Amino acid sequence: MADQSHVIGIDFGTLSGRASVIRTADGAELGAHVVDYPHGVLETDLDGVRLPPDTALQVPADYLRVLAVAVPRALADAGVEPGSVVGLGLDVTSATVIPTTPDGTPLCEFPELAGRPHAYAKLWKHHGAHAQTRRLVETARRRGEPWLARYGGTLSVELAVPKLLEVAEADPEVYARTAHFVEALDWIVWQLTGEQVRSAAAAGYKSLRQDGAHPSAAYLEEAGFPSGPDALAKLTAPTMAPLGARAGVLSARGAELTGLPAGIAVAVGNIDAHVTAPAAAAVEPGQLTMILGTSTCFIVSAEEFREVPGMFGAVDGGIVAGLWGYEAGQSGVGDIFAWFVDTCVPPEYHDRARAEGVGLHDLLSALAAEQSVGAHGLIALDWHNGNRSILVDPRLSGLILGQTLATRPEDTYRALVEATAFGARTIVESFERAGIAVTEIVAAGGLIRNRFLMQVYADVLGRPLAVVGSSQAGALGSGIHAAVAAGVFPDVRAAAAVMGRRADEVFTPDPASVTAYGALFALYTRLHDAFGREQTIMHELKDLRDAASKG
Amino acid sequence: MADQSHVIGIDFGTLSGRASVIRTADGAELGAHVVDYPHGVLETDLDGVRLPPDTALQVPADYLRVLAVAVPRALADAGVEPGSVVGLGLDVTSATVIPTTPDGTPLCEFPELAGRPHAYAKLWKHHGAHAQTRRLVETARRRGEPWLARYGGTLSVELAVPKLLEVAEADPEVYARTAHFVEALDWIVWQLTGEQVRSAAAAGYKSLRQDGAHPSAAYLEEAGFPSGPDALAKLTAPTMAPLGARAGVLSARGAELTGLPAGIAVAVGNIDAHVTAPAAAAVEPGQLTMILGTSTCFIVSAEEFREVPGMFGAVDGGIVAGLWGYEAGQSGVGDIFAWFVDTCVPPEYHDRARAEGVGLHDLLSALAAEQSVGAHGLIALDWHNGNRSILVDPRLSGLILGQTLATRPEDTYRALVEATAFGARTIVESFERAGIAVTEIVAAGGLIRNRFLMQVYADVLGRPLAVVGSSQAGALGSGIHAAVAAGVFPDVRAAAAVMGRRADEVFTPDPASVTAYGALFALYTRLHDAFGREQTIMHELKDLRDAASKG
Repeated sequence: MADQSHVIGIDFGTLSGRASVIRTADGAELGAHVVDYPHGVLETDLDGVRLPPDTALQVPADYLRVLAVAVPRALADAGVEPGSVVGLGLDVTSATVIPTTPDGTPLCEFPELAGRPHAYAKLWKHHGAHAQTRRLVETARRRGEPWLARYGGTLSVELAVPKLLEVAEADPEVYARTAHFVEALDWIVWQLTGEQVRSAAAAGYKSLRQDGAHPSAAYLEEAGFPSGPDALAKLTAPTMAPLGARAGVLSARGAELTGLPAGIAVAVGNIDAHVTAPAAAAVEPGQLTMILGTSTCFIVSAEEFREVPGMFGAVDGGIVAGLWGYEAGQSGVGDIFAWFVDTCVPPEYHDRARAEGVGLHDLLSALAAEQSVGAHGLIALDWHNGNRSILVDPRLSGLILGQTLATRPEDTYRALVEATAFGARTIVESFERAGIAVTEIVAAGGLIRNRFLMQVYADVLGRPLAVVGSSQAGALGSGIHAAVAAGVFPDVRAAAAVMGRRADEVFTPDPASVTAYGALFALYTRLHDAFGREQTIMHELKDLRDAASKG
Repeated sequence: MADQSHVIGIDFGTLSGRASVIRTADGAELGAHVVDYPHGVLETDLDGVRLPPDTALQVPADYLRVLAVAVPRALADAGVEPGSVVGLGLDVTSATVIPTTPDGTPLCEFPELAGRPHAYAKLWKHHGAHAQTRRLVETARRRGEPWLARYGGTLSVELAVPKLLEVAEADPEVYARTAHFVEALDWIVWQLTGEQVRSAAAAGYKSLRQDGAHPSAAYLEEAGFPSGPDALAKLTAPTMAPLGARAGVLSARGAELTGLPAGIAVAVGNIDAHVTAPAAAAVEPGQLTMILGTSTCFIVSAEEFREVPGMFGAVDGGIVAGLWGYEAGQSGVGDIFAWFVDTCVPPEYHDRARAEGVGLHDLLSALAAEQSVGAHGLIALDWHNGNRSILVDPRLSGLILGQTLATRPEDTYRALVEATAFGARTIVESFERAGIAVTEIVAAGGLIRNRFLMQVYADVLGRPLAVVGSSQAGALGSGIHAAVAAGVFPDVRAAAAVMGRRADEVFTPDPASVTAYGALFALYTRLHDAFGREQTIMHELKDLRDAASKG
C-alpha cells in the first residue's frame, strides 16, 4: 500500500498556508500550492479602529481558504488523483488560539462582535498579555506549582493561558461567550472532521497540561481568572489525543471543502516547529533537531523526564508518542543577522554585492569564511532579543567586545554568527548536563542554505551536522503524521524512518577549528555567566532605558 | 608697544606647516599661509626601496620650505610690514626627531646616506621601536628608576629615546655618525638662530629628562645602547632653555630665509599640543585644556608634582615655566567616530545626508541629539585604539553592550560619543583624586565644531565647558611664546591672559542630564574596571587574534 498511496500535508505559517502532496513510499513532495491569508496579520487596526501595541490577530476563515484553494491546486500540481490520498495532516504556528461557540464558530464571525479584537484569533506573536503572564508566573511560584519546572521555571507571554486571561480581563463579554479557547491547529482539524479532538502534545506545551491535567481551578482563580471551572472548560475538550493518532475522518463538509474523498484519515494537529523532527528523520531519543530561522528552536526526545534549564516545555509525548519531548530556544538568530545587514553595513558593501549579483548575507559570509578562527579578535553575546534558553531572561541584550579601528563589517558578521553558534552549544551542553543525551544533530530551517554558517556551527559544536533533505519540512512532517493516522505506518518513528529526508551532505567539523573555538567558547561562557548571572548591568541599562523612554 | 607690534607663530603639523601673523595687542590673526611638505610622510618606500611596517619618516628640508614660503606670504596676506614683527615662535609635532652632524646637517642630506631610512627624520607616529621600548621599560622597572613614575609607569613607543635605540640597533653606522638626535622643534629653531638651544620642556616629555638630567649612562647601556656616554651626548645640548625664553635672535641666514628682520627674538621651540594651552588662555594651575581630535590630549599645570596614573608625562616647566605640566591622553576619540561612520553606517543614512547637504557626522549628531540620556539603552568602552590614560594598556579593545534588534546607527554613534566623554571624566577625576585640581576645562581641537558632542561632554563632566576662540590655536600659541621671547610680556602667563582667546559661548551642563549621566557613568566605571583591571578577556582575545594572524 505504501508505494501507491499519497498523503496531504498542510503547513499553516504566519502569513500563508502551504499544501503538499506527498508520496508515502519515500516522502517525496509531488506537488504543492501556497495561499496567502487574505487578512494577513491584524496588528495596527481593526475596521479602522486602532489596535493597542503588542496586538497580532488573525481571521480564522483565512485558514479555511487555504483548505479550499491550496489542496485542490496541490493535487493538480502533482498530477495525483484525489482517490489515491489516504490521509491528511496539518501543522500550525503554535499558541495561535481562537475563541469559539460550543459548535466551533469563531466569535469574530458574529456581526455584533466583529469590532472586538478579543473575539479574533490571537496569533502566536500577540504579546498583549505581559501583565497576565507575570501574575501567572508569580502565582505558580507562590503556590509551588510542580508543573512550572516543565516550562523552565517561567512562562512565555505567548502561551494560551495568558492569552485567555487577557480576554477575561480586557473583554469580559467575549470571555463569557467563549465556550472553547482552542488552538488553531485543533480548530482546523475540527472543521475537517466535525468533531473536537485536541492535541495532547500542544496542550502540554501551550496550555500547561501536564500529567493528564490542566492547572487547578484554584490556581487559575488565584492568578485572576473569574471563579468557577469555566477557564478549565474553555481550555480543554473531552478528547485529547496523542500525536500520530487519527483525530477523525474527513467529513462530508470537509470533503466538499477540499475536494478529497470523505472518510480518509485526518491526523491530530501539530505544532509547526515540532513536525520538523519527523521530516528530518530525527525522532529517536538523542536525535536533536535544530530549526535555524529568525530564532532557533531545539527539539529532542528522551525516554525520561529531566529538568533542563530554560526550556519552552517538556511534554510527555510532546514530539512523538511514548517519549518525553523537549523544546528549547534561542530568541534571536537570523533576526540578529538581518538587523546587522539592515543597519550596520556601509554602502561599499551594498555596491559590491550588487555588482557581484549576490545578497549581502552571501557577500559577508564569503568574506568571513576566508578568515581563520579568532582572527577578527571579537566575541559577542547573541542576546539582542533577550535570552530564552538557558537563562530565560528577556531583559538581557547584545554585547560585542574586541573592536578596533581596523574592525570590518565581515568581522562583526562572523562574530555574530559565532555568537549564535556558541549559544546553541550552550543549550546542547545544558541538555547533556541534565542527562538528556544528544547523539546526533540535524539542522533545518531557512539558515541551512548558508554554508559558511553551517560550517561554523559544526566547528563550534564540534560534531557533524546533518541537514534535513526537504525545503518544506513542515508540510512533509504533517504528511508523515497523516500517513500514520491512515495506518500506512504503525507509528511516527516508523514513518519518519521511511518518509523523513536528509540531505546527502553532512557538515564535518574541522579539527583545528574545533580546538580554536574551544578557547573562544570558554571566553563566551565567561561573558555569558558574567552578564547573564553575576552582573546586573544589562538589567540596569534596560531600566534606565525604560525610564528615559517614559520621561 | 604691545598695540603696534606683531609676531609670527608657525605651527608645523604632520603634513603641512602654517605661518600666522598675530597682533600682540589681542592675539588676533591678521594673515596666514599654509605650505604642504613636498615629501609628506615616507611610509611605504624610500627611493623605490620598500620600507618596513610601522615606519614614518620626514625630510627636514621640507620644514625650511615652510619658513621660506609661508612666512613671507603670511605677511603679505596680513598686509603687515616685516619691520613691525618683533619675534617668531614655533611648535612642531612632538618626538619627531632628526639625526644630525655636529653642525646640525641632517644625515639624510649626505648622498651616501640618502637611501638609509634611519638617516631621516622619524615622525612622531613612527612605531618601529616596539622591541626597544619594551626593553627600556623593563630595564627601568628592574633598576627601579625613579623617573619612570613621571611617565605613568611606562613609556610610549613614540618617545625620542626608543627611536634613538632603534637607530643604534638597526643602522650602527648612522648611529655612529649621529652627533645630535634632535627634536625637530629644536632643529628648526637652530636653523633660524644658528645656535643649538633645546627646549627643556620637550626634553622632559620626550627624552626622559627629569630634575635636570637624562637617564644615566648605566641605565641606557643596560637597556641596549652601545657603552659609553655617546647616547647621552646625542640627546642633549649645552643649553637647555625653559618655555617662553628666547632661544636666540634671527640670524642673517634666518632673515634671508624668512624675509624677517635679523636680530628679532626667536622663542624656544614647543610641542604642538602644548601651545594650545596659552592660546586657550588656560595656563594657570587648575585650568585644563582638552584638545579633542583623532585622539584627545589633556594638559594641566599645577604648583607641585603628584603621581597621576597613566600620564604621558609630568614635567617641571612642561607647559609654562614655574609650574609642573601634566599631559594625559585618550588614544582614540575622533578616530573611533570616523571608524564608525566609515564602516558601520548603512546607505540610507548616506543618502539622507547627501539629500540634506550635510556630513554623516552632522546627520548622526542631529539624530542623536534628539534622544534623552539613556534612551538608547547602550553603553560602550572607548578602547578601540587601546587605553592610554589611565590604564596604560594598548592591548585593550572596544566594547558595546545593550544592543537590541531596534538599535539604530544614531544610537550607537551617541553611545560612542558618550563613551569618550566618560573616558575624559575618568581622566579628570583621576587628576583630582591625585591632588591635581581641575577648576576649569577649556576645549580645543577639531571636534569642538560638533555642538552635540560638546553638550554631551559638558553634561557628562558636569561642568561648564569653555572653548578656545581661535581655529588656529597652534600658531596663536607659538605667537604668544614669540611675544614673551621678544619681551612684549614678562612671561607666558601674562601673555596668555592678553593674547589667549576664548569663544563667547560656554557649554553649560543641563542638571537633569548630569544626574542621568551619573548613573550611566557608574555603569561605565564598572565595565572599565571589570575589563581594564579584573578581567583578562580582552588580552586573551588579542592573543588569540595574534596567534590566528600568524597561523
